[in-house]
Amino acid sequence: MSAIAAQRAVRGRFLDIQHTVCQAAEIAQAVRYIEDGLLITTAGKITWFGPWQEGQHLIHPELAVTHYPEQLIVPGFIDTHIHFPQTEIVGAYGEQLLEWLNTYTFPAELKFKDQAYADKIAEFFVQELLKNGTTTALVFCTVHATSVDALFEAAQQHNMRLIAGKVMMDRHAPDALCDTPESAYSDSKALIEKWHGKGRNLYAITPRFAPTSTAEQLSKAGQLKAEYPEVYVHTHLSENKNEIAWVKELFPAHDNYLDVYHHYGLTGQRSIFAHCVHLEEAEWDCLHATNSAIAFCPTSNLFLGSGLFPLKKTWQKQVKVGLGTDIGAGTSFSQLQTLNEAYKVQQLQGDKLSAFESLYHATLGGAKALDLDDKLGNFNLGKEADFIVLDLKATALQALRQQQVSGIEQALFALMTMGDDRNIHSTYIYGEPVYVKA
Amino acid sequence: MSAIAAQRAVRGRFLDIQHTVCQAAEIAQAVRYIEDGLLITTAGKITWFGPWQEGQHLIHPELAVTHYPEQLIVPGFIDTHIHFPQTEIVGAYGEQLLEWLNTYTFPAELKFKDQAYADKIAEFFVQELLKNGTTTALVFCTVHATSVDALFEAAQQHNMRLIAGKVMMDRHAPDALCDTPESAYSDSKALIEKWHGKGRNLYAITPRFAPTSTAEQLSKAGQLKAEYPEVYVHTHLSENKNEIAWVKELFPAHDNYLDVYHHYGLTGQRSIFAHCVHLEEAEWDCLHATNSAIAFCPTSNLFLGSGLFPLKKTWQKQVKVGLGTDIGAGTSFSQLQTLNEAYKVQQLQGDKLSAFESLYHATLGGAKALDLDDKLGNFNLGKEADFIVLDLKATALQALRQQQVSGIEQALFALMTMGDDRNIHSTYIYGEPVYVKA
Repeated sequence: MSAIAAQRAVRGRFLDIQHTVCQAAEIAQAVRYIEDGLLITTAGKITWFGPWQEGQHLIHPELAVTHYPEQLIVPGFIDTHIHFPQTEIVGAYGEQLLEWLNTYTFPAELKFKDQAYADKIAEFFVQELLKNGTTTALVFCTVHATSVDALFEAAQQHNMRLIAGKVMMDRHAPDALCDTPESAYSDSKALIEKWHGKGRNLYAITPRFAPTSTAEQLSKAGQLKAEYPEVYVHTHLSENKNEIAWVKELFPAHDNYLDVYHHYGLTGQRSIFAHCVHLEEAEWDCLHATNSAIAFCPTSNLFLGSGLFPLKKTWQKQVKVGLGTDIGAGTSFSQLQTLNEAYKVQQLQGDKLSAFESLYHATLGGAKALDLDDKLGNFNLGKEADFIVLDLKATALQALRQQQVSGIEQALFALMTMGDDRNIHSTYIYGEPVYVKA
Repeated sequence: MSAIAAQRAVRGRFLDIQHTVCQAAEIAQAVRYIEDGLLITTAGKITWFGPWQEGQHLIHPELAVTHYPEQLIVPGFIDTHIHFPQTEIVGAYGEQLLEWLNTYTFPAELKFKDQAYADKIAEFFVQELLKNGTTTALVFCTVHATSVDALFEAAQQHNMRLIAGKVMMDRHAPDALCDTPESAYSDSKALIEKWHGKGRNLYAITPRFAPTSTAEQLSKAGQLKAEYPEVYVHTHLSENKNEIAWVKELFPAHDNYLDVYHHYGLTGQRSIFAHCVHLEEAEWDCLHATNSAIAFCPTSNLFLGSGLFPLKKTWQKQVKVGLGTDIGAGTSFSQLQTLNEAYKVQQLQGDKLSAFESLYHATLGGAKALDLDDKLGNFNLGKEADFIVLDLKATALQALRQQQVSGIEQALFALMTMGDDRNIHSTYIYGEPVYVKA
């Protein structure tokens, strides 16, 4: 491939956050908005970014420029918690967490023993991510190694950076969905060897949650993490009050829910805990001390009636946080719809979630939560070129609204309140357009 | 027009609720689901409804049958609380009720002094209703009589049954948006004479809320209601805690917020109070005793952080309730999206909102709240033929999900969780298709 063939030049309105921050109040100053900008990518990485005026002379004469004069280009959305085998159970009625798992989730996950079925849903799932502008996700598979193969293969076809892992679960679930401490260890280890760092794929050690893993299995998970410190840990924490009570019953010797994971070496800079709706102070402190991250999943927390996540506290306690759709307890693949409800969850607590803070959580903040902010999340030089082209006027009502707004922040907020997959005009992965709205 | 020219025959899958109920548990038994049904309308009214097998021989040989083999046909949605002049401020950032009014609402409403502008937005608004399957709505206009003319004229073009009225507001608002007790009375009276009962239009006496009307104005509103007992009363009640405290300060002699309205004769069978999130027991009792109704507006209550409406209590206290989008504090014109969040609001309170109960609130229950259940809300003979044709598989994700459901209740719930305007295939008003999705 010639140098030019590996290049892309995209012109348009660009918006991103230039660097990570320690407080929400710092975000506005880190916002970078270029009304007429140019992005040049080479072999998937960003090699030039800035105003069109300054960059246009750098474009090779044979390189065509893709121009989006009407749209808004932002970094790809990052989904820090989602279950691909639950794609087909979105909108399953009437239960809170523990009953919901037994009634809907486990029966759905049983089907993933079948490789053909897993392949079909994996491909569908990846298409839904792209259609919704999500370019990176941290994904639960099922207990079956085949489900992990299916997902990574689907992601690899589009060169997507996904993080995923096989569920570890050796109790309180149907036999056919249970592994053992040993098989969970050996299967996960084989998958790490097979997939972690292959292309853009990354592996996550994935115990479902403390109630479905014995102490022996958690110990094995910790052993694996110690052997492969660069892989991720992905699990659930403090989503629902009955769940928390159950963990206290199952692990009476531990100070709190998080202490179970911490004890087995499962906290850390590449550990992501989904939900964290009802944390005790000591758990906040442990997340901070270990540099662990939270995945905030508003549509799921509302749909299952789990509670209201105190986003503001992540800034106070200096705990990393990303946004998660949590399909299929969440109700939409769209990070825009997720942000709509994230805002509402904060309003119910008397807190304001600004459009720029929302953008931060959906992009660079999510990248930081996944310890990928050196590679993803904005248009800085050297970063991987995952970005999306947003149409702010995808419906008549949005078009009317956008005529009324003044400034990019109001425009962005209106988009986040009313937007859905229709607002995703195009999705670029590693410099290439892999989805264009019909 | 010949008898046949006035007739329509529609064949397809029909779902409705046969009669009003006193308890949620009675709804399932009142559900009527006809997999292959026939609806015949004559001059806008339902003249035959039942299974295709039984009705097909009744169809005049020259009458064409419109067949929807794949869709689901339900009564038109009823929106019991919405502001048409706020159409263009959906997704305005960062405030709770009182600040939101001053910052966004009042400036938007000032524009409606201009008849051409009012006409433009009224037409847009009616199109949005139809596009979202809403066939009847109870609507706030602005203080300007012209805004009412604009809306009723737009509705009349489609023969829609709308209820609307001019805002009465004589304090705590910009001067240009204030009327006086006398002008509010005389302008409203003129509008009643002009519009109430003309075609399908109905009028609502519309004091914005107690804080923006003096006692004198509320007294005039009550006088008008006494003179025209068949017109509606439409206002706000107990949406936000600061609002409630303000009312107590402004009307210290009254037992509670609702007592202000009740004192001036503004409660009753055709009185609808939007929100009612924080009612005292005595207020529930007064709503019940006066047969007044509540408009439950979940997306708005979440967006403004007002609180969680206790829907279950409407059954316990036997108070009529309908569903409202409350555009523009609400975030969607779609009753499907409104039901998605209605479910979540109940889940947060540990209550289950079934798909059939949701359908009830959006159709027949809403009609009852508006004292129109003799005319609207289901397919009973003699009712006005307002109905919608739903596409249950409007997106790839919905199509996948609908393959998994078993039975109409699960199908309906999935629709209500994931649906939006894309699911509205066609909207019929008074027997005529006035909207068909492109």
